[in-house]
Order: sequence, then structure tokens, then C-alpha cells
Amino acid sequence: MLQTPPARPGMREDEVDTPALLIDLDAFEANLDTMTAHLAGTGAKLRAHAKTHKSAVVAHQQIARGAVGQCVQKVAEAEALAWGGVADILVSNQVVGADKLARLAALARITNIAVCADDAGQVAAIEAAARDAGIRLSVLVEIDVGMGRCGVAPGADAVALAHVIAASPHLRFGGLQAYHGRAQHLRRLEERHFAIGAAADSARRTVEMLRQQGLDCPIVGGAGTGTFELEAGSGVYTEIQAGSYCFMDADYARNLGASGKPVAMFRHALFVLSTVISAVRPGIAVLDAGHKAVAIDSGMPLVWQRPDIRYVGASDEHGKLEVPSEAEAPKVGEKLRLVPGHCDPTVDRFDWYVGVRNGRVECLWPIAARGGFY
Amino acid sequence: MLQTPPARPGMREDEVDTPALLIDLDAFEANLDTMTAHLAGTGAKLRAHAKTHKSAVVAHQQIARGAVGQCVQKVAEAEALAWGGVADILVSNQVVGADKLARLAALARITNIAVCADDAGQVAAIEAAARDAGIRLSVLVEIDVGMGRCGVAPGADAVALAHVIAASPHLRFGGLQAYHGRAQHLRRLEERHFAIGAAADSARRTVEMLRQQGLDCPIVGGAGTGTFELEAGSGVYTEIQAGSYCFMDADYARNLGASGKPVAMFRHALFVLSTVISAVRPGIAVLDAGHKAVAIDSGMPLVWQRPDIRYVGASDEHGKLEVPSEAEAPKVGEKLRLVPGHCDPTVDRFDWYVGVRNGRVECLWPIAARGGFY
Repeated sequence: MLQTPPARPGMREDEVDTPALLIDLDAFEANLDTMTAHLAGTGAKLRAHAKTHKSAVVAHQQIARGAVGQCVQKVAEAEALAWGGVADILVSNQVVGADKLARLAALARITNIAVCADDAGQVAAIEAAARDAGIRLSVLVEIDVGMGRCGVAPGADAVALAHVIAASPHLRFGGLQAYHGRAQHLRRLEERHFAIGAAADSARRTVEMLRQQGLDCPIVGGAGTGTFELEAGSGVYTEIQAGSYCFMDADYARNLGASGKPVAMFRHALFVLSTVISAVRPGIAVLDAGHKAVAIDSGMPLVWQRPDIRYVGASDEHGKLEVPSEAEAPKVGEKLRLVPGHCDPTVDRFDWYVGVRNGRVECLWPIAARGGFY
Repeated sequence: MLQTPPARPGMREDEVDTPALLIDLDAFEANLDTMTAHLAGTGAKLRAHAKTHKSAVVAHQQIARGAVGQCVQKVAEAEALAWGGVADILVSNQVVGADKLARLAALARITNIAVCADDAGQVAAIEAAARDAGIRLSVLVEIDVGMGRCGVAPGADAVALAHVIAASPHLRFGGLQAYHGRAQHLRRLEERHFAIGAAADSARRTVEMLRQQGLDCPIVGGAGTGTFELEAGSGVYTEIQAGSYCFMDADYARNLGASGKPVAMFRHALFVLSTVISAVRPGIAVLDAGHKAVAIDSGMPLVWQRPDIRYVGASDEHGKLEVPSEAEAPKVGEKLRLVPGHCDPTVDRFDWYVGVRNGRVECLWPIAARGGFY
């Protein structure tokens, strides 16, 4: 059941019911502008990843600032964006199963849609779906550039699969998907440099082999919030698939820059607003946001602007705060903002964004692809 | 947006779209019967915890087998059950905020509703809400019996708060909430014995003090799937709040019994059905169920009836399987059942249960309180 929104436009932030998912609109818009500025002149375009935000409303703001379109991770996300008017969508993942491929092919009637493959059997299945729908689909070859998950080996294997795609009457070879997810969270800049240097070399060699065999490679896509400057500067990546940059979570904020200090390129723009529901014992306060409200797969959330208070434990519906004796103790009923450890799965738990500016609710946006499983 | 169901009744299980949340109906019904049998003659009744299943459909099956009602953890869950015809609901948690309390009080017009408190200010707020709604609410005092989270100290503090409730014109003192969450997952039986022995002693002393001061204590509630036999046998607990027993997750299955072997009282009845979407490298297969589909806060899921394959890593939308060279390797398109590490937050990610029996889909049940935040 769709939840009713926890707020109305015009409300003060402290009137919002909790737990609620807030966007600080000033910080969010600044993040979008920062990405545009960083990519200007690099030759790489942004294709922002909607697995972070799951919202056509956010997508359109990214596109208005220069993004060529959106990435998604599954068909349900592609549907939510296509139905919301997004005109160019890449499923940066394998789509397996005849029902899902039929839905994907149906979207080609209303938007530009592309998908990845790393298996010749899958290319045949995509061809069959495109043929049945009477459309033509763009298919990218996913290559493994260090992630060790999906993707064929760069070089000959990738070129062989590209030929299979190009030879399929209802498909066209769309390029290479070359995402190095593991590199995003390597803390030291030189580690990220090394990983992405190797990924870009693999992609470059593959593009050259393709060209030698008469296959043009329109897109080389990859990169995330942790490494996008490296891919953008590589001369081989044409599309940057960063997602988290628009919200910025606690985990990404732990990445270090050249100075050995945390990179502070993007601002925290996403918060879980939470209420203190119990504070019986000195040194402990309990929030109404546990791990059903804030994802803990990449570490506990931070308490915003209260570095003296630590969120030390999450159960289903409770978050436990440790309050040192010298700190001002939160009181029952007090509302605190949490910075999620990981923004993508946190967003996926909510139905509504509550956009706030200057302490007031400015807008409500539906998280249209929330939980879009299939 | 509510997701369309991933299946239709009558389908074969291997036709269900993935990721999907399956209930093995035979195992589920056996679990309900097992609980009924174990509580028979103990003097303790089941008030099953709906934070696990979030569904009036499941609640009614528990009540049909003798449960006196349901526990929930928040107002949105209470609403979903009350609207689904559940007649007796305890919010086993603090409810903070005037809007939430007004919604809680409104439910008293259509169902028997009770709530917990651990703070005199909160009792005043509940009294105000009940007065404004023109109803009378039952309020339990939550005592801390070892969890170190919410709850006043057992004994004098609890009795003082019970007096405040009893003296409030629109409230009645409903009893004690004495849940020891931490004890549920203590692996060794003697540890659980020790923890619940102490919890029951605290509850018993508090009940005696209440009686000495003229306060009857209609309910002493607590217990979970890991310890319920101990509370039920204590002579002091009147209501057992187990939730996970109906589905049984991988984490609870690691609890050990008297023999030092895992307790095998309940069967795994909840599964995430998942599809292999990539299998390029020998020894690795990739599923379409990552941590957005299966909760990993209590460990990785298990691959059902394939102990030779390990689920070793979850990212947002991918699950990575490690397949030893001697094992039969899953193929692209093959569907596998996963046993969630933790059932409650896994259920909370889905909109539909797909009930299966003898390899066929028998029913679809909505997870009505899914994500019910406020």
C-alpha cells in the first residue's frame, strides 16, 4: 500500500512526521551544479544512475543540467522513468527472463532504451523479444574491468559478443558497459587511480579491437561518485554513471582525496528525519529509525551536526544513540536528522521525498520506482 | 507505487517473476501449529508480532489457531491490521508525537488497542490524545529486562509510572511490556536460560510490588522466537510476542538447543526467489537479489537445499554466489530460493507474498503494512 506523505508543503521541518526522507534542496541543487561543472570540457557526458533516486522528478533536473539520460538497474525502474517522460534510458545490467524482456521491448515504443549483455544466449533472448515487439534495441556488451561480478573479459571475448549483437536483425551494438564498482569505495586516491587506470586501459584496448574489426563503439559507460573524475579524464569513457553524488552518503564521504583528507566535493543532501522516542537511561537515547528506515549495509548513519552523538545500533524499528555525559542529551520528542551510511537502499525504503529549504517543506516527490523488483 | 504481483495463482513456481517473496504454505502452517502445540497448557497465550509479517491475512491465521491478538511496532502497522479486521492490537513500543497519537486513539473506535510508555510526559500526551478522541486507552509500562534500550527500571520506577497511568482519566493500566530482545539471539541455551530467568524475576518482582500497591497487572508480555518456551514456562509472562517463528530465518536457525545442535522446532517457510542473471566466470554466479531484495543485517542469505553454494556478497541489485568446482554450476535463467538471514526487514522490502504449495502458486497476499513508517 502506498503510504500517505509524512508532510505537506508549507509545514515547518519540525512538523514533519517521522521517520521521513528529507532532501535538503539547496544542497541537492548545488550537487547537481557541481557535477555539471566538473564534467564540462572533459568530453564525457553524465548519464546519472537512477538506482540511487528512483524518481523521474530527480532525473529531469539532472537532464536539465546536461545529463544525456539515465541509467537504471532493472526493468521496473526503466518503466517508472519512461512513464515519467525520461527520453533516454540504459539498463546498465543483464535482464533475464522472457516477461521482463517483453516489458523492456515495449518501452522502446515510448523512449530510447538500451540494455547490457554478457552472454550469447541472452543476446538471442533479447533479439527474440525485440523481434516479437517489432522494434530495434540497442545492446551494450558488459565487460569486467575489475569488479569480478558480471561482464565478459575485455578484448576478444567482448568483441565476439559485439559481433553476435551486430549480426542480430533487431539489435544494434550500443557500446561497452565498463563499470568498476569495487573501485568506488577504495579510500585512498592512489588506489582509485590505479584501479580506474587499469579499467580504462581494458576499455581502450577493447574499443580499438572493435574498430579494427569494423565495429564502431558509440558509448563507453561506467564510473560512479567515487571515481568519475578519473573516467571522465581518461579519454575513453564517454558516459559517466554516477548516482550517489546528488545525495552524498556517509560512506562516500569517507573517501580521501590527494591531501589525504576526505573529498568534500558534494554536500550531504539526503537525511532520514527521526524522533527520539525514549530516553530513560543517562547516556542513551532511542530513535524511531532502525534498519527498516535507514540502510546499514555500509555502516551506521551519522547524526547530522551532532558529531558528539553516535548512532551505535539499529534494530528493526529502533536506533540507539550513545550520548557522552558532556553532550547535550536529546529529549523525548526531539527530531534529529540522520545522514544515511548508504543512500541507494535507504531511498528504496520510502515512498516519498520531502524537499526542504530554509526550514520549510517546499515539495513532495513520489519515489516512483521504490521497491521495483521485477 | 504499489508493484504489480510477480505471479498469478495456478502458475508453476518456476514461472514466478523474480525477485519474489515466497511463502511455503505447508511449512508456514506447520509452524503455526507447532507454536500452538508448544504453548498449550503453559498458561501463556500467543500475541504474535506482526512486525514480522505486516499482514492481516497472516494475523487471522494465527488468531484462528489461538493467538489472542497481535503486536505491532508502530501506528501504521496497527492501522493496516485494524483495517484488515484484527480485533486486538498492542503497540509494543513508544508512540511519540501528537499526530501519531491521534491516529492511535482513532483506532480505538474500531478495535481493542493498547500502547506502551516509559516516560511520564508520554503518559500525559497519550492521555491528551485519548481525551480528545473521547475514548479510553490501555497503556502498558515498558520495563527494561536486559535489552538496554527502551523501558523504565523494573520495580519502583515501573510502579510509579503505572500509578500515573492508572490516575489518568482516559487511560487504564494494561500491564507490563518486558521484552528481552538481546536474549533472542544468544546462541547457547544456557545463556538464554540465564537471561530470561533474570528477566522473569524482574517482571515477577514488579508484578508483586504493583499488587501490594493495589494495581492489578492484566498482561505481562514479551518473548520472541528464540526464547518463548522460557517465558511461557516462567509462570509470570501471560503473553508471548514471537513473530519470526511463522517464517523462520537463517539467523534464528543458528540458535542451539540442549544437545548443542541447532534448534529445529520451526521450518524455513519464507524464501526470496531469485534468478541467475550472469555466470561468465567459473566458480561465480550472479543473482538478481542483492541487499535491496534480501536483508543482510543478520548475515547473508542461504541458498535453499544447496549447502554447496554460498551467497558471499550483496550489492544493491546483485547477489554473488561462490560455486566450488565440484558443485553443479547454476546457469543463466535458473531460479534459486534464498533463505533470508533476517525475515522481518526482508518482508518489509516487498509488496506481495506469493504462497506456494506443491510447486504451484496458490495465493497472493498483500503486505499491507510494508514500509509503514509513521
